[in-house]
Amino acid sequence: MDKIPLYEQLASEISHQIEQGTFRAGERIPSVRRSSQLKNLSITTVLQAYQLLEDRGIIEARPQSGYYVRTRRLAAIPEPEVSAPPLDPNTVTIDNLAMMVLRDTVEPNLVQFGAAIPDPDLLPTAKLNRILAAITRIPDRRQYTCGTPEGCDELRIQVAQRALTAGCTLAPSEIVITLGCTEAISLALRAVCKPGDLVAVESPTYFGILQALESLGLRALEIPTHHREGISLSALRFALDHHPVRACLIVTNFNNPLGSCMPDDNKKELVKMLAAREIPLIEDDIFGEMYYEGDRPKVAKAYDRKDLVLLCSSFTKDISPSFRVGWLAPSRFQIKIERLKMASNIATPIFTQLAIAQFLETGGYDHHLRRIRRAYELKISAMSQAIIRYFPEGTRVTSPQGGFVLWVQLPEEVDSLALYRLALKSKITLAPGYIFSATHKYKNFIRLNAAYWSEQNSGAVQRLGELVSMLAKH
Amino acid sequence: MDKIPLYEQLASEISHQIEQGTFRAGERIPSVRRSSQLKNLSITTVLQAYQLLEDRGIIEARPQSGYYVRTRRLAAIPEPEVSAPPLDPNTVTIDNLAMMVLRDTVEPNLVQFGAAIPDPDLLPTAKLNRILAAITRIPDRRQYTCGTPEGCDELRIQVAQRALTAGCTLAPSEIVITLGCTEAISLALRAVCKPGDLVAVESPTYFGILQALESLGLRALEIPTHHREGISLSALRFALDHHPVRACLIVTNFNNPLGSCMPDDNKKELVKMLAAREIPLIEDDIFGEMYYEGDRPKVAKAYDRKDLVLLCSSFTKDISPSFRVGWLAPSRFQIKIERLKMASNIATPIFTQLAIAQFLETGGYDHHLRRIRRAYELKISAMSQAIIRYFPEGTRVTSPQGGFVLWVQLPEEVDSLALYRLALKSKITLAPGYIFSATHKYKNFIRLNAAYWSEQNSGAVQRLGELVSMLAKH
Repeated sequence: MDKIPLYEQLASEISHQIEQGTFRAGERIPSVRRSSQLKNLSITTVLQAYQLLEDRGIIEARPQSGYYVRTRRLAAIPEPEVSAPPLDPNTVTIDNLAMMVLRDTVEPNLVQFGAAIPDPDLLPTAKLNRILAAITRIPDRRQYTCGTPEGCDELRIQVAQRALTAGCTLAPSEIVITLGCTEAISLALRAVCKPGDLVAVESPTYFGILQALESLGLRALEIPTHHREGISLSALRFALDHHPVRACLIVTNFNNPLGSCMPDDNKKELVKMLAAREIPLIEDDIFGEMYYEGDRPKVAKAYDRKDLVLLCSSFTKDISPSFRVGWLAPSRFQIKIERLKMASNIATPIFTQLAIAQFLETGGYDHHLRRIRRAYELKISAMSQAIIRYFPEGTRVTSPQGGFVLWVQLPEEVDSLALYRLALKSKITLAPGYIFSATHKYKNFIRLNAAYWSEQNSGAVQRLGELVSMLAKH
Repeated sequence: MDKIPLYEQLASEISHQIEQGTFRAGERIPSVRRSSQLKNLSITTVLQAYQLLEDRGIIEARPQSGYYVRTRRLAAIPEPEVSAPPLDPNTVTIDNLAMMVLRDTVEPNLVQFGAAIPDPDLLPTAKLNRILAAITRIPDRRQYTCGTPEGCDELRIQVAQRALTAGCTLAPSEIVITLGCTEAISLALRAVCKPGDLVAVESPTYFGILQALESLGLRALEIPTHHREGISLSALRFALDHHPVRACLIVTNFNNPLGSCMPDDNKKELVKMLAAREIPLIEDDIFGEMYYEGDRPKVAKAYDRKDLVLLCSSFTKDISPSFRVGWLAPSRFQIKIERLKMASNIATPIFTQLAIAQFLETGGYDHHLRRIRRAYELKISAMSQAIIRYFPEGTRVTSPQGGFVLWVQLPEEVDSLALYRLALKSKITLAPGYIFSATHKYKNFIRLNAAYWSEQNSGAVQRLGELVSMLAKH
């Protein structure tokens, strides 16, 4: 094999870096002297390489300044991976499908009926950002430390105060601030289970929960769940009597994707049933504040007499998804959770915690909640009607009393993955039913994010209806 | 048992909440009507309860406004737990000792010789905060999403450019942004090991690494490590030949606590030795940019031909501990790491990522690094001299060529935990040697954080010396 000259090797390496986006159009690349040091090459060799790159039109010299990436090249920032789901549904895993649905959220040209992200117009972004900017101007010595695992007192106090409305008396010291509800759930699972353990969950189940279980080597036991009343207590009791269930993980209020809300009596019964068996309940209450009418539903934690319910929630659906601020009330597992948090990432960043705390204290949170509850109720109702209108006969839709997602059962012949793929071509994303069960049992179901419903998007629902009809006829 | 009247129960509950800090001095408690709804009690009962609390001087009524916590009560925010290490060294675990050392960082009255936190005066806080405030004013649709596991392109590009100076050619797409180096290490361990596996580490080892191993059910195999040249390759080779080592986790440059820096030839040899056995290397390079003289030391990753080195680092030591921004180059484990990140907490907050990216691009990072390298070199040197001067004979101190911690060997009779306890009484914190080994073998060692050295703190070093002398004589 002929040896490639050193300067050609260097030129092709730099060329490769420019393609990968390490150096973008208009940016300066390392100087000749710097490259010579970094690569341990002579100045002459580096100059030869740069000359070659100039000849190829990849870089240009600017007098007194250095070498720059030529702007005729397109910026090589990697684009989000969209629209290429695998062709064979059998090779699909929850992980890669869920990842695709998540990545769709950063694609600006898609109608966002996929991931359960809130309507940007229903987030208090301007106010929250002003609070954050103001906080950066206040000296705070906690900035100079990594922080502590349990989080800052300001936010823990606000969370304790809010928990009262859910029927829960929690001391600030009984709360741990997390990176969203996902981290709360992941830490809770790690505190109460070890790999191989069996965890009872609802069916269908939010895919993030299934991913958390899988990533920790845990097994899911899926319990039938009613689209209004939530998990079936008789089915759960049977499961507990026949399987070595180590923990139970339930979205008690406005379950995702079903929208079901357990009646308070059922929550009481659930807590009692688990307490009698000393089985911890991990309760996900992320949508609890988003009820449409009446009072805020209680949490199961309100009935916890044995300090055995780990309550998880976050401010990612109502205040800011990107601040990633959630919390966990670990009950008797407090110290274990603090240690797991420390070993995982030490602490949640202080500024985002403080901004959320201040918004809760002074930002008109109650007023904000009243506004978004009403808006999401209207969206859910209007989108349901559009689905009924545009989707073929045999379609069924849930009627949730809170939250902002709809669970849609399509005619039996329709494969939700095929629908996802076709919808992407029409610039619409959605969550295929496959990812809501470890056994892929919801093939002909989809979850739609009604937060992105608007009159302008009714065309997208119509288009989905056409695609469903088309697939139903195959 | 006599039944306690309902109003007394409510009064004692609210009183308890005030003690726990849920409602602080001067804050309004829920209105009579609200409490009546929340607790399902009659208005009369709530009024009786509030009257009782008024009589006890706990709350006060303000006309037209409601009931407030009286200010004569001290705010009941839980104070940081300091100064109460357990009395019996045998019950001490790395976890609870490390947690105490971490909590000491938020105690403003302590001389911070404990955790390895940077000198606040050597952080670009004002500039970074201005950047963050400016970013909050730029519309960015990523704010409305939870983000993606790999992190934002702006920061990944900056990391890829910086990696060149460490001898590494990484594409931006080969980097995952994490919540500090701790999360990078924790994800890396989860990607390459399963519970029960054996991981070869240096001895002494940074306690965060030992905590990560323990929290994941992994076992540490401690390999002798030289205070200048780092891990002993012959000892490691022997270990690999005799134990089923699943992964190797090494702080190649300016190891914490030793300060050792592996010669580049040793790194090359290390990578080769592991590659031949298909054993992944998790490399922690958090202090790599903080060398005192010569060129930036290379990373072992620079010699990785088999895509088997997972490189971890962060900007928590040089730019901001509290922003919690780190990164990981997972090599062949890229997809696995992205999935683990998604299942753990979905993504790192976007604003802190963007602020660090912009600081790297426009904030004069190189100039900043030159300044802090010089400053830490001077601190290390001055603090070493103070230790030699004030500590009793038999004391030994490392001479690191980078980073900002000193590893101090005390006379054999001195128990570092007893010293920690006494030092706290003198308002000084330090890191006792116990926590740097799973087998507690560094009883008479301490790690001191030289970042907090200053002439004014020389008295604290003198005081430590007196305490060591006292303990040595017992």
